[in-house]
Amino acid sequence: MGGVRPNITKHRGEVDRGTRRKALGQKGALVWLTGLSGSGKSTVAFRAERALVERRRATYVLDGDNVRHGLNRDLDFSAEARAENIRRIGEVAKLFVDAEIIVLAAFISPYREDRARVRSLLEPGEFVETYVNAPLSVCEGRDPKGLYRKARAGEVGQFTGISAPYEAPEHPEINLPTDSMDVDACAAEIVAYLEQSGFLAGG
Amino acid sequence: MGGVRPNITKHRGEVDRGTRRKALGQKGALVWLTGLSGSGKSTVAFRAERALVERRRATYVLDGDNVRHGLNRDLDFSAEARAENIRRIGEVAKLFVDAEIIVLAAFISPYREDRARVRSLLEPGEFVETYVNAPLSVCEGRDPKGLYRKARAGEVGQFTGISAPYEAPEHPEINLPTDSMDVDACAAEIVAYLEQSGFLAGG
Repeated sequence: MGGVRPNITKHRGEVDRGTRRKALGQKGALVWLTGLSGSGKSTVAFRAERALVERRRATYVLDGDNVRHGLNRDLDFSAEARAENIRRIGEVAKLFVDAEIIVLAAFISPYREDRARVRSLLEPGEFVETYVNAPLSVCEGRDPKGLYRKARAGEVGQFTGISAPYEAPEHPEINLPTDSMDVDACAAEIVAYLEQSGFLAGG
Repeated sequence: MGGVRPNITKHRGEVDRGTRRKALGQKGALVWLTGLSGSGKSTVAFRAERALVERRRATYVLDGDNVRHGLNRDLDFSAEARAENIRRIGEVAKLFVDAEIIVLAAFISPYREDRARVRSLLEPGEFVETYVNAPLSVCEGRDPKGLYRKARAGEVGQFTGISAPYEAPEHPEINLPTDSMDVDACAAEIVAYLEQSGFLAGG
């Protein structure tokens, strides 16, 4: 079990990360899915979560649904509140990772700076930037919530890809072209990455 | 494994709570430790966490250390910010519980109303109010951070038990008189409660 290794012990309690990892048989990670509205972030995240639960892993999806309606219900959609939204999600994900849970976070998160700030909260390797990469035309064609139509009609201000920028990841750990790859293949890619990077073993 | 049971499915994804509970072999709960400064909340929480990790459970302590320095770093100690502090902790704990993790939250949380609001976020039975119950004179005698001394000297405003009220739980699920019960016994009491209430089985 080894002694307390100060370099990986962030938690103030009696349990060091090595001990917890061994007990759970996994290591915490944050798989951060970024991409345009309609690119398939939540769909892929939920499929990957299912695959991990089938392997009896402790895992959880954070997305607009469970965060915006709870923790961040006090935030509006101003530029400042959007940055605060991502900051808080990063801090919550950090707590989950410290608990050695595998978190899948599905948020448009259009700005490189916001994503880099979340990455900087974690240890090297723990932040797995995952680009859910579908062309705007494909996302707009899907338009599952009718938001692109509204944005084109000028009914939604600051809509990513239409009236606000999307800054694509430059070197994402995982690239998922969802216009040519199906949901199961995308989920399998995430699980394979976690496996190969050692997150699914506690040792 | 059973189908999706809508009444316990809060998570929007493909995994219902029953499936996740079975996979993890446990059910999510929030053990909320409330009590005066110096009553032993964090000490007890960390000892209980260790006992649970030794049983290979997924568990995590939230306390001032990991929350005030991260998620809630933007909050000061005004009355409004203190309520917001507890609100956010409740919302974060709710996410952990939805992930079927056993959370131990150690916060003075002096107001009944704030604690009741956190309880109301969860399903019946999931909120385990734990009164870390030591007389003020004992806590003041311990004074591990020298805060009581400062409060008596008038150097700290609004100090719970001295210049601000502490509203003790009226019907806590667990009562821990830490002036007469040692840390191991307190931790064992929490683990026994979780066991007897079915949280340590995935059923």
